[in-house]
Amino acid sequence: MGVEIERKFLVDKDKWAHVIKPTGTHYRQGYLLDEAKRIIRVRTTDKQGFLTIKGITNGITRKEYEYKIPVEEGVELLDAFAESEVEKIRYKITFEGKLWEVDEFHGDNTGLLMAEIELQHEDEAFIKPDWITIEVSNDGRYYNSNLSKNPFKNWGNKS
Amino acid sequence: MGVEIERKFLVDKDKWAHVIKPTGTHYRQGYLLDEAKRIIRVRTTDKQGFLTIKGITNGITRKEYEYKIPVEEGVELLDAFAESEVEKIRYKITFEGKLWEVDEFHGDNTGLLMAEIELQHEDEAFIKPDWITIEVSNDGRYYNSNLSKNPFKNWGNKS
Repeated sequence: MGVEIERKFLVDKDKWAHVIKPTGTHYRQGYLLDEAKRIIRVRTTDKQGFLTIKGITNGITRKEYEYKIPVEEGVELLDAFAESEVEKIRYKITFEGKLWEVDEFHGDNTGLLMAEIELQHEDEAFIKPDWITIEVSNDGRYYNSNLSKNPFKNWGNKS
Repeated sequence: MGVEIERKFLVDKDKWAHVIKPTGTHYRQGYLLDEAKRIIRVRTTDKQGFLTIKGITNGITRKEYEYKIPVEEGVELLDAFAESEVEKIRYKITFEGKLWEVDEFHGDNTGLLMAEIELQHEDEAFIKPDWITIEVSNDGRYYNSNLSKNPFKNWGNKS
């Protein structure tokens, strides 16, 4: 079991386009269970599957249990059991000694660019890259589980 | 992924008491999700945890995905995420070349003794030990997930 502390931000599309970045990883992720206190997620990359159980969200901290599973089984679980799904390309970038994960969403969430930073403590300081814009850590619309059900393309006001 | 084909029977308590059997294994198992088409189960023995996803029941056949997890995490998941739970001692016995798993239920299901045999084909022949009584493969009350919510002690007519 891990405790996950992360902060999420929107990304400026034009500035991001000019960032030199490594090849991204294609993610499919779907939800077998999505409740306020319990989330069960299946994620696949091209090579690996993951089964993840997440607990109560308490501010930006939540308990997380993640298990590697064969990618073929991950795909089967997504196809047979997931109620909803998101697709994205994830880029990992280190900036000022911190790892940022930037998600470029596809499908019904095309146009959404979001960055996450994982922290050791809730009040840990870090320096933001210039392509980071507003924080959305506590905006439920941006949870991946919610994006799978109410995708970005359906939002009336995208500001 | 495996396909599970199993048949379930009740066990005669008096005859079972005279069977020479190995030491049983203590199981706790709880359900994170329990729907007609999707079951997510956490099981712990004293040494090992398991996370299992089961698919559609089609007669006595169902898809099953099972992953080993650390026992400590299994206990945490049961305590924090399970909606309901059963406890039992499982005995494994080989009879006429076939493995039988006999579950002696505890807690609110005390008094229930049930045996399962796993088969390769739905119509596979096998010889029943004399302690086997009626078949309950298709009686939903005896599913472990249902026993966790509507335990044996609450049944009016136990015949």
